[in-house]
Amino acid sequence: MAQVLVVYATDYGNTEKMANAVAEGINSVEGMNALVKKAEEATSEDLLASEGVIIGSPVHMASMDWRVKKFIDTVCSGLWMQDKMIGKVGGVFTSGGGFGGAGGGTEIAMLSILNNIAELGLLMVPLPKNTENYKKGGLQWGPYGRSADENMEHVGVTNAALSVAKKHGANVARAAALVSGQEIFIA
Amino acid sequence: MAQVLVVYATDYGNTEKMANAVAEGINSVEGMNALVKKAEEATSEDLLASEGVIIGSPVHMASMDWRVKKFIDTVCSGLWMQDKMIGKVGGVFTSGGGFGGAGGGTEIAMLSILNNIAELGLLMVPLPKNTENYKKGGLQWGPYGRSADENMEHVGVTNAALSVAKKHGANVARAAALVSGQEIFIA
Amino acid sequence: MAQVLVVYATDYGNTEKMANAVAEGINSVEGMNALVKKAEEATSEDLLASEGVIIGSPVHMASMDWRVKKFIDTVCSGLWMQDKMIGKVGGVFTSGGGFGGAGGGTEIAMLSILNNIAELGLLMVPLPKNTENYKKGGLQWGPYGRSADENMEHVGVTNAALSVAKKHGANVARAAALVSGQEIFIA
Amino acid sequence: MAQVLVVYATDYGNTEKMANAVAEGINSVEGMNALVKKAEEATSEDLLASEGVIIGSPVHMASMDWRVKKFIDTVCSGLWMQDKMIGKVGGVFTSGGGFGGAGGGTEIAMLSILNNIAELGLLMVPLPKNTENYKKGGLQWGPYGRSADENMEHVGVTNAALSVAKKHGANVARAAALVSGQEIFIA
Repeated sequence: MAQVLVVYATDYGNTEKMANAVAEGINSVEGMNALVKKAEEATSEDLLASEGVIIGSPVHMASMDWRVKKFIDTVCSGLWMQDKMIGKVGGVFTSGGGFGGAGGGTEIAMLSILNNIAELGLLMVPLPKNTENYKKGGLQWGPYGRSADENMEHVGVTNAALSVAKKHGANVARAAALVSGQEIFIA
Repeated sequence: MAQVLVVYATDYGNTEKMANAVAEGINSVEGMNALVKKAEEATSEDLLASEGVIIGSPVHMASMDWRVKKFIDTVCSGLWMQDKMIGKVGGVFTSGGGFGGAGGGTEIAMLSILNNIAELGLLMVPLPKNTENYKKGGLQWGPYGRSADENMEHVGVTNAALSVAKKHGANVARAAALVSGQEIFIA
Repeated sequence: MAQVLVVYATDYGNTEKMANAVAEGINSVEGMNALVKKAEEATSEDLLASEGVIIGSPVHMASMDWRVKKFIDTVCSGLWMQDKMIGKVGGVFTSGGGFGGAGGGTEIAMLSILNNIAELGLLMVPLPKNTENYKKGGLQWGPYGRSADENMEHVGVTNAALSVAKKHGANVARAAALVSGQEIFIA
Repeated sequence: MAQVLVVYATDYGNTEKMANAVAEGINSVEGMNALVKKAEEATSEDLLASEGVIIGSPVHMASMDWRVKKFIDTVCSGLWMQDKMIGKVGGVFTSGGGFGGAGGGTEIAMLSILNNIAELGLLMVPLPKNTENYKKGGLQWGPYGRSADENMEHVGVTNAALSVAKKHGANVARAAALVSGQEIFIA
């Protein structure tokens, strides 16, 4: 069994629902299992023990939650410095109210997480357009679970968005299984 | 009378509708008038004669239309090199199908245009959350007119989005009127 | 006297040096004074009492320091929700080791801060190319103080970068003085 | 033999040098060969016949060259619409004068290209920090060849940057070889 780590922060439970859907997707791939951790609790050991890493965050002020950033600054950065994660696989997802009707800043939120994924030297898994429910599911960078309607009423992430998150988790797990033990990057 | 230039490209007329709404907003401000030009037709002289510049684009493959980029590379860049536009005012807007439900890449599209606005040394005008119809109108960077519904059926930009574009045009025009002739940037 | 708030986080003192240079620039503008606060200490009251806000951060893993993000999530976001800062003026700056020779991710770091500036509804002040020492000073989004040389030896931010930070502070202060009490944004 | 396509635009030959170095890296991987095309000449057939795609551009006004964008808008977008490229591998690189000392906008330039790579559904290959000459070679998103010195004198891309481009090409080729014929994405 190989492991994919899912790290997230959550305020009202929406990003947590997305994280659990991502994990369900990982676990649906033969030979792969998900380890789900809140950003405050995930450790270097969790990262080192995983073939893939998926990081999710609420969109706050058009970028990632500060707790996710603290995890990146205080846990991921040490492994970056030591080149310990190169050649693994990574992905991102977000959740947010979506005020404005265009994702509420989810793209820079995703990219500021993906920055960390790239710095660690992970192969980055996108979200293809033909994914079932993509129409309501996000961006090319990963799934986005909208948690509010147009009037900013909190309605929670939809099943459509959760299904996209599950697909994304499975895609990342398959990519992680494929590259595990292979040498892609030669320094 | 002081002028604000609106430059855009359009495929099916949606970004053009947005451009016209922006222009309507500019013209609604006393003492200000809009000059609306397609990207292929806008010139250095148009830029030099304007106190503000608003650039709009369809979102294609999650960034700006190539015709807008050609305008930036071949017309704006010369004025950048000569420091001719510093201290004026700028803004951006986009239109797109919105596939994925989170703006379809409009944020990087807007930012890759805003990059040019910043390089030219223009004060950048955001889109405040309290703008009427903001809920359906875009992002903090500017108005976004979604032209398709969830099933990618082309329904055209909504009146709500057009009203946001008009407000944005007026905001940029007021900012341009305010800073015209003032010295903000000292090299 | 009108106030511009400078908020920053620092690890080894480089971003702090940049913050102090920005403040020096603000104070050089007649009628304007700087209030300099660490991200952990800046309050809503500080923001409300200021005509302009400049936020600076070390570049960590290619985005802003988590303490700056915590300030944005826990202090700025409340004022965003209440539309309390619309029409003021904002700017950004960063400092970092610059590993890789291309800013080490400072652009997304700057943009993830600028996202917050835009969400708050602040006019955004760029860094024009003709600014003295721009060649060694950063990006169109704002000053960048490189703190290490090519071998990642910590040499500290240069006087050239500090001089750019000072110019930027003065530019933001002049813009803040100009728009103070004016009505640019009509909702 | 499997093919990796290298698409680029160039003004003064610097991005072309980078493209050729990337191609050299691809050709150094057993069983892989590079097809190098200018953006104006690359076709849908070239894309369909390749297991990987690497796109490079000069940095103009802090985003990609308009000719590269035209290739994306008019050639790539059709394959995106038809989901024809999903599961292949992609990478990016840039070249630029680097005015400002922090990459001159290469990050958004790279990301606006990478947007297209992600939309096509390609696994994205980063540039790990431990790559030889990384210190002078770019960003986590890919190689950056600086073509000018601090005084904007045109000195051409360095051998160090070219060596990073070569490593990147080889990394992408190995990733393409690994995923060729494998099923990562299930819609």
